[in-house]
Amino acid sequence: MNRQTITFKTQPRIEAVSSICGTKESEGIVGKYAERVLFDDMFGEDTYERAERKMLTTVIEGAIQNGGIGREDVGVLVLGDLLDQIISSSFAARAFDIPFLGVYGACSTMAEALAVSAAFLDGGHFESAVAATGSHFASAERQYRYPLELGCIRPPQAQWTVTGAGAALLTAAGEGIRITDATLGKVVDYGVTDVNNMGAAMAPAAADTLLAHFRETGRSPEDYDLIATGDLGALGSRILKDLTNEKGLDISKNHTDCGEIVYNVIEDEYQGGSGAGCSALVLCSYLYEKMRRRELKRVLFVATGALLSTVSSGQGESIPCIAHAVSLEA
Amino acid sequence: MNRQTITFKTQPRIEAVSSICGTKESEGIVGKYAERVLFDDMFGEDTYERAERKMLTTVIEGAIQNGGIGREDVGVLVLGDLLDQIISSSFAARAFDIPFLGVYGACSTMAEALAVSAAFLDGGHFESAVAATGSHFASAERQYRYPLELGCIRPPQAQWTVTGAGAALLTAAGEGIRITDATLGKVVDYGVTDVNNMGAAMAPAAADTLLAHFRETGRSPEDYDLIATGDLGALGSRILKDLTNEKGLDISKNHTDCGEIVYNVIEDEYQGGSGAGCSALVLCSYLYEKMRRRELKRVLFVATGALLSTVSSGQGESIPCIAHAVSLEA
Repeated sequence: MNRQTITFKTQPRIEAVSSICGTKESEGIVGKYAERVLFDDMFGEDTYERAERKMLTTVIEGAIQNGGIGREDVGVLVLGDLLDQIISSSFAARAFDIPFLGVYGACSTMAEALAVSAAFLDGGHFESAVAATGSHFASAERQYRYPLELGCIRPPQAQWTVTGAGAALLTAAGEGIRITDATLGKVVDYGVTDVNNMGAAMAPAAADTLLAHFRETGRSPEDYDLIATGDLGALGSRILKDLTNEKGLDISKNHTDCGEIVYNVIEDEYQGGSGAGCSALVLCSYLYEKMRRRELKRVLFVATGALLSTVSSGQGESIPCIAHAVSLEA
Repeated sequence: MNRQTITFKTQPRIEAVSSICGTKESEGIVGKYAERVLFDDMFGEDTYERAERKMLTTVIEGAIQNGGIGREDVGVLVLGDLLDQIISSSFAARAFDIPFLGVYGACSTMAEALAVSAAFLDGGHFESAVAATGSHFASAERQYRYPLELGCIRPPQAQWTVTGAGAALLTAAGEGIRITDATLGKVVDYGVTDVNNMGAAMAPAAADTLLAHFRETGRSPEDYDLIATGDLGALGSRILKDLTNEKGLDISKNHTDCGEIVYNVIEDEYQGGSGAGCSALVLCSYLYEKMRRRELKRVLFVATGALLSTVSSGQGESIPCIAHAVSLEA
């Protein structure tokens, strides 16, 4: 039986990050750590899709600049997003003369991008890589749900897609935060079909990956200063803790969820934030800064994704979910 | 300046393959080498999307069985497809209790999946991996173009989405075909906006990757028994040869294109085949078998992808394209 957890011998570093978020996101705990805030959610563009793309381009460029290197020094861009055919990523990559690998794991994309980038650096193939993703409330709403103009009411179990993006510049060596290992997730589907209840759908995948991670590494939750899942939201987080408790794993002491903390008053957004940009924003602002200041030394970043499409839901399918965990050490 | 070409120190092997194709595809040169042929393009399912998913599940299972190992021995599935949110891949991965990484590179997906899988094996992270992708004419037509029921006429520069899938079982050691290196592509966009002329859009990306590959490796086209691009189709292949010739690289002696050879009488399908399944099918049937018999010893597999979406085209954007090259040695 192959292990799901892979260990990076060279421990690639997160040398620099860059983040951007919308006005609503800027008002929360996390938003105060964001590098840039959009006061115009169109970002000066004429479509939400172009705004999302510009957010992604901005953070990729930002991470490269913050790392003090040139574009020509970056070996590969590993990018993904929620729009059909990960179009924001492909168009963002077009703006850079750098090899590009497109990845897709819905809201787990940031963890997948980190793991794939780290594997290429660990193998000695590149000296540096950029892992990035983002999402935009308005482009996601019109693709996955309803055009904003319809003014649809959201059910209480729903989450709110984060307008935000985060990019991490990974380097093969340096003083940055070390990526020590990663637990790659399996697709888990407990049969949830309610597309407004992603937290419930994703919680079993998060539990599955966490159980594998602690079983395979021999660590306990206390070995981490923080276990940051998400975006499960408030309800999903409660389900996760129930599911892991049932299996004898108590993560309650040092667990937080990117979707739960991204907004200030989460009642307004029902269960909290979601979207590929949610965990990417939290990682590349709040978590990175806390680790840089050594307020957090060891963090397990467990991004979760609901791998549905509008067609699959329309055809009555349930929601396959996944979670990838990445261990970070300051 | 980072090189685009990465060298796999351990040379991971393609230990086994599996392929499936539709009736139309079975009538060509390539189809004779396919492991399974669908005489019912619904594959016994009630939607084209479920048929596509079943094709992918079938070849993944087939490659594992042909490799003589168990599902529990496979370290990771690296899958992608053309449907929104790569839904065929996520649902196919759900059928296996194996970690899953979703990738997206449109019709270049098979080369990307091979490169990512090989990097994980080369780094010693897993003993084996499955790289797979597929496409279905009917599901692609209704997502990207028009429902088949409309009976739309195709323009002469169009290609025909292949109903087919291919999976390769990669192992860290063994007697299989060796993956020696890979040249990861950059996004190239010459401003083509005609969504019916993907060959013309993708040819510059193929040229860019080929030029980088030969420049960085110091090899010449004659070092390969075959350079298999695609799916550029007939017109795209002519453009590719013009573009590389202009730069002093003559690939005409040993070049073929997966889109050009997949159908018997390509005039019926205008420029030939396309779709993520096209190059995957050609690799996992015709090319693999020719290499296994040592009729071809060294092959450069250069899958090309048009990274557009219906939204980006509708918003008047041009088509960003990419090509990844993977060197194979029997």
